[in-house]
Amino acid sequence: MDKELSSIHYDKYLQLNKILDAQKLRSEEFEKPAHDEMLFIIVHQVYELWFKEIIHDLNSVMDIFKPEIVEEKKIGIAISRLDRIAKIQKILVDQIDIIETMTPLDFLDFRNYLLPASGFQSFQFRQLEVSLGLKRENRISYTQCAYSGVFSQEEQDILHQIEAGDSMFGLVEKWLERIPFLKFEKFDFLTEYRKAVDKMITIEQEAINGADYITAQEKHFRLGMLTETNKYFQTVFDEDLHNQKVANGELKLSYKATISALLINLYRDEPILRQPFLFLQKLIDIDELLTSWRNRHAQMVLRTLGQKIGTGGSSGFDYLKKTADKHRIFYDLHNISTLLIPRSELPEMPESLKKKLNFNFSNKS
Amino acid sequence: MDKELSSIHYDKYLQLNKILDAQKLRSEEFEKPAHDEMLFIIVHQVYELWFKEIIHDLNSVMDIFKPEIVEEKKIGIAISRLDRIAKIQKILVDQIDIIETMTPLDFLDFRNYLLPASGFQSFQFRQLEVSLGLKRENRISYTQCAYSGVFSQEEQDILHQIEAGDSMFGLVEKWLERIPFLKFEKFDFLTEYRKAVDKMITIEQEAINGADYITAQEKHFRLGMLTETNKYFQTVFDEDLHNQKVANGELKLSYKATISALLINLYRDEPILRQPFLFLQKLIDIDELLTSWRNRHAQMVLRTLGQKIGTGGSSGFDYLKKTADKHRIFYDLHNISTLLIPRSELPEMPESLKKKLNFNFSNKS
Amino acid sequence: MDKELSSIHYDKYLQLNKILDAQKLRSEEFEKPAHDEMLFIIVHQVYELWFKEIIHDLNSVMDIFKPEIVEEKKIGIAISRLDRIAKIQKILVDQIDIIETMTPLDFLDFRNYLLPASGFQSFQFRQLEVSLGLKRENRISYTQCAYSGVFSQEEQDILHQIEAGDSMFGLVEKWLERIPFLKFEKFDFLTEYRKAVDKMITIEQEAINGADYITAQEKHFRLGMLTETNKYFQTVFDEDLHNQKVANGELKLSYKATISALLINLYRDEPILRQPFLFLQKLIDIDELLTSWRNRHAQMVLRTLGQKIGTGGSSGFDYLKKTADKHRIFYDLHNISTLLIPRSELPEMPESLKKKLNFNFSNKS
Amino acid sequence: MDKELSSIHYDKYLQLNKILDAQKLRSEEFEKPAHDEMLFIIVHQVYELWFKEIIHDLNSVMDIFKPEIVEEKKIGIAISRLDRIAKIQKILVDQIDIIETMTPLDFLDFRNYLLPASGFQSFQFRQLEVSLGLKRENRISYTQCAYSGVFSQEEQDILHQIEAGDSMFGLVEKWLERIPFLKFEKFDFLTEYRKAVDKMITIEQEAINGADYITAQEKHFRLGMLTETNKYFQTVFDEDLHNQKVANGELKLSYKATISALLINLYRDEPILRQPFLFLQKLIDIDELLTSWRNRHAQMVLRTLGQKIGTGGSSGFDYLKKTADKHRIFYDLHNISTLLIPRSELPEMPESLKKKLNFNFSNKS
Repeated sequence: MDKELSSIHYDKYLQLNKILDAQKLRSEEFEKPAHDEMLFIIVHQVYELWFKEIIHDLNSVMDIFKPEIVEEKKIGIAISRLDRIAKIQKILVDQIDIIETMTPLDFLDFRNYLLPASGFQSFQFRQLEVSLGLKRENRISYTQCAYSGVFSQEEQDILHQIEAGDSMFGLVEKWLERIPFLKFEKFDFLTEYRKAVDKMITIEQEAINGADYITAQEKHFRLGMLTETNKYFQTVFDEDLHNQKVANGELKLSYKATISALLINLYRDEPILRQPFLFLQKLIDIDELLTSWRNRHAQMVLRTLGQKIGTGGSSGFDYLKKTADKHRIFYDLHNISTLLIPRSELPEMPESLKKKLNFNFSNKS
Repeated sequence: MDKELSSIHYDKYLQLNKILDAQKLRSEEFEKPAHDEMLFIIVHQVYELWFKEIIHDLNSVMDIFKPEIVEEKKIGIAISRLDRIAKIQKILVDQIDIIETMTPLDFLDFRNYLLPASGFQSFQFRQLEVSLGLKRENRISYTQCAYSGVFSQEEQDILHQIEAGDSMFGLVEKWLERIPFLKFEKFDFLTEYRKAVDKMITIEQEAINGADYITAQEKHFRLGMLTETNKYFQTVFDEDLHNQKVANGELKLSYKATISALLINLYRDEPILRQPFLFLQKLIDIDELLTSWRNRHAQMVLRTLGQKIGTGGSSGFDYLKKTADKHRIFYDLHNISTLLIPRSELPEMPESLKKKLNFNFSNKS
Repeated sequence: MDKELSSIHYDKYLQLNKILDAQKLRSEEFEKPAHDEMLFIIVHQVYELWFKEIIHDLNSVMDIFKPEIVEEKKIGIAISRLDRIAKIQKILVDQIDIIETMTPLDFLDFRNYLLPASGFQSFQFRQLEVSLGLKRENRISYTQCAYSGVFSQEEQDILHQIEAGDSMFGLVEKWLERIPFLKFEKFDFLTEYRKAVDKMITIEQEAINGADYITAQEKHFRLGMLTETNKYFQTVFDEDLHNQKVANGELKLSYKATISALLINLYRDEPILRQPFLFLQKLIDIDELLTSWRNRHAQMVLRTLGQKIGTGGSSGFDYLKKTADKHRIFYDLHNISTLLIPRSELPEMPESLKKKLNFNFSNKS
Repeated sequence: MDKELSSIHYDKYLQLNKILDAQKLRSEEFEKPAHDEMLFIIVHQVYELWFKEIIHDLNSVMDIFKPEIVEEKKIGIAISRLDRIAKIQKILVDQIDIIETMTPLDFLDFRNYLLPASGFQSFQFRQLEVSLGLKRENRISYTQCAYSGVFSQEEQDILHQIEAGDSMFGLVEKWLERIPFLKFEKFDFLTEYRKAVDKMITIEQEAINGADYITAQEKHFRLGMLTETNKYFQTVFDEDLHNQKVANGELKLSYKATISALLINLYRDEPILRQPFLFLQKLIDIDELLTSWRNRHAQMVLRTLGQKIGTGGSSGFDYLKKTADKHRIFYDLHNISTLLIPRSELPEMPESLKKKLNFNFSNKS
């Protein structure tokens, strides 16, 4: 114990000799010092540090979900870690305000010295995307080059290795598929849910038909939209249709995992489902914040570079804007909302199942 | 003076009897009280209050820019007011976090009672968009109905009246067109700027050609992009081309206003141009924050409703996502960045002009 | 069902006729319109709306904790509601940025018309403080008047009634006192905890004594601080001492409730304790955000008014600064940290108890 | 030009080999890996990177204010740089949310390995405080040691050197003292201001006396407060009294600088005073954000450590709370608000002076 106590010092512990000695301005090297290049370097280094932390947390969550049986007590820890990631992401979005204090003209003072480096060349960011579950084939290609082309062979190998293994998406999917409450004794969730949906749609239809305060045209329009809505529900009752949509890329999450996610969302107040519900919510938070970051990043690039080619040789704005939409990982979890029905219509679980979902200890006993 | 002092009281001044008595839960009316409906009402009321303040500030800024001669000392005030709008918008975006504490299932508890009301029916928000300069013809139509169809005749009349008058965009455009420094004695800004651009492009071209560390393919690719960039510059030297782009909707800002905005951006450090520069920056901030709000709003709608039709009968997510891109007002100001050149290449202004742009009082005199 | 569908409209539902017609500028009444008075009014109205929502949520959480037996499934809901309150508070702090766009000079344009109204006269804010558990006797008096003096008789009666009933603090205290896991068969939490603490203190002592890299003076100093730390631990082992500290106002939470809160913090990973742990965390969040709000509010007042008397006749800065420190409600929960010991030192719970704290359903069975 | 283009690569440019290789977990070294130690290290490294950027910006602003004659066009740049500092500070405050995801128990997993390192040992933070103008004698001592005791001899020398030179506070003070508009031809600012103040106080007095709706007691109370307010004003008219207050530490800013700051605040709409006004505002922003950071930091420490001694051997909470109040730098600028008078009472400047404060170029000419 003595050893460690004897040596630790703030600067040394944080290795500030490295951290604070890693800002070498290209513009200074070429004797045209540009004040804002310091910001440019530091802001990117800060991003990389946070990426490292995010990957550290994400990996630990993935480790929790790798075993066949996920320990109940660990789900709470997983949620905390995801929550940390979300809080970091929030800062990653907000600190774009700092970058934007560098005006386009300030950037031009040193932009030429940076070519052909590019903001898109963060290996850790790619690693993060792949770990979350972004598939090579769903990726919007930025240039004609493969997305990993800018990385070293070693880095490319790591990316391939991660892709070959489990992603957060894949682990969550398998875990959802294993959730054992879809059929319990006489309770068949899907059958009960279908009845409730049919009833709900009928009521809405009647309401629209009976509403004498709207025009025939509006009535027609709204009935049409209800039909559209109904289509979403039908997917849930037709495994083949679902699989077809997965095949053509419209959906990503497997049929069984989708049904489990739906059950968790609907019966989230049962004690054993509370943490799984919160866990799924956090995945959505993270996806949403990633989208926010991409949107905000795109705007910043538009502002700083206009439609001009970025460092690295690309019109960054258009590319980034597209990824915001297309690089979502957990879209299917977001979209569970489409399938929800009001609590008042929710099929009651049998008492015996409810008891299973509660704690051993009971205040009432 | 005595009169007013005699009557004022916190509650009465703020008319809290009205403000705090305006939350009537539909779900309670139908005897199925849904806890979260209170949040739903209050959050919308808060938005409307902030919209009122934004419109109040925006109108005051427009008043400043209406006269032929905009008083120098008022530009500072205009900037402060726009800055306030931006800070309010920041909160409007951030407080979506509050709305998202209402889960989709919580929303379903009272959603049915709200039909066919819709979040898109905020008259003040339409008023704000129109005042900023969003034109009817540039608006993405949400349904087959005209965008103003949900409003009363009186409200529609007001919208038409605003559209018929000056918008913030229009006022700024005219003000920019009047900026008198484009030609000054022997200094012709555009001629000098063209020389600088040509020189810069040539240098970049040579750098790429001479770079022996990149492949022929990459070289080809990057020269191609430089050519693309060059095209943007050419628009500035060709008024007809610019006008053509305005005609077909690619650009909105007039030729002369664009050149003035460019001059302000390039020579922003001259005292008389500092405030105009900051003013243009704030307009961009506001546009950017409006885009952030739309993006964030779209995500929230996806999360709460999925692809289900929204209150009001629409799949809000797709619509909102599109408006984020297309309903920008000051895109042309953002895009000035494309036309900037490094300070090192900036044509020097003649001393006599610089003096004109400085204060009467001089430390040196 | 038809009835409600037939009538609802965005404006009417939100009662915008009231909301947007509640801004009457005093400065306009006296024909010296001050632009920023609109902001002043609206910002206060927004605060009052959010206060209403917070009280709505807080009351619902208190209702959950009022029964002798708190339903497990409702704790999750309570946490969500507290989380919503925290998110609203975050916005309440952040939107002070908006108020600060009103400079002191702008405020002076209409300050005179407001006398003697005061920002401290929010009835809802008092109600909130009292509901949380702020006691009259712990309140810093602002002027020589009683704190409720500015309110109407009816309002004062309501405050008294709330004070006479259960506060959030009181309900949490009682709930903690009822937590049944402090003694379970042969496991006596306090005995085990004491052993662990003694061991830990001894180790730290030895480490300091054995550290030959620090000066004798430093050693003396650090041993002194360790002794100080130890004193905090001792309170936990001495109910009388604890009660004495409660009596003299140093502590607020009862002895038994404190021990339970400690147990929850230490064994929070056991499934049945997870939600209680998160619940206590949220109470701390709320307390912390209330403190942040007071600090930020104080700064804003200093900036706007300086040390000048505020509207309402007080030097607001000093008063507000003091309340930030002294009006904490859940300080004792914060301070549980002082009593924590590392997980590595944590006494192991017997398996039979762990099983009680887990779910009926088991993956392993 | 070829040389630089040939070598640059994202990773190398950012020196990620250093940045991402500087996280060595002590807990891993001792084979008890604690997951959250990574966060602890990274968050501190991020702070240090931002501190470096802040110092970089602050130094550049100080360079602008060092010459006898501060170039008009550079004040705008100084404001932008201070604005960047403020935006960074905002993030420094907000990202405490990230740290707080590390619960006290998580921290205890590795806290022992850190002793006696301390969060207060950031050299850059001390450097920042000293550069801003925090004087050794105004510093609250944390332990019995001198504040610089934890630093190396070399670091201490640097701190002394900075202290011996110009601080931001000192430079601003001198610059304010040189502002030449206090007396201009027949216009004597202080004389005019005094008349206005006297008139204003008289009016307020009469209003209170004449108010028949308040009790005699309340009247007495409010007249008393007005007398207090009046005292603040009197300081401005009595240079000796002011100097006395500076001598005993109540005030810091010199008499002449204070009067200039007052003039700038009152006549900020005159073009030449606009930028100086915004500059002073930014200094207040920075001071305020520093206070926010200290407050928030104190709360975080309370939450994580309770009243337990911190790493480094101190009860951080109490210390940090005190510094929030006492380590303000630009308190005197905040407090200018106390001396403001309404625009309606503002003495009119002579036209000849107004013209001096405007631009050479005039739209009207």
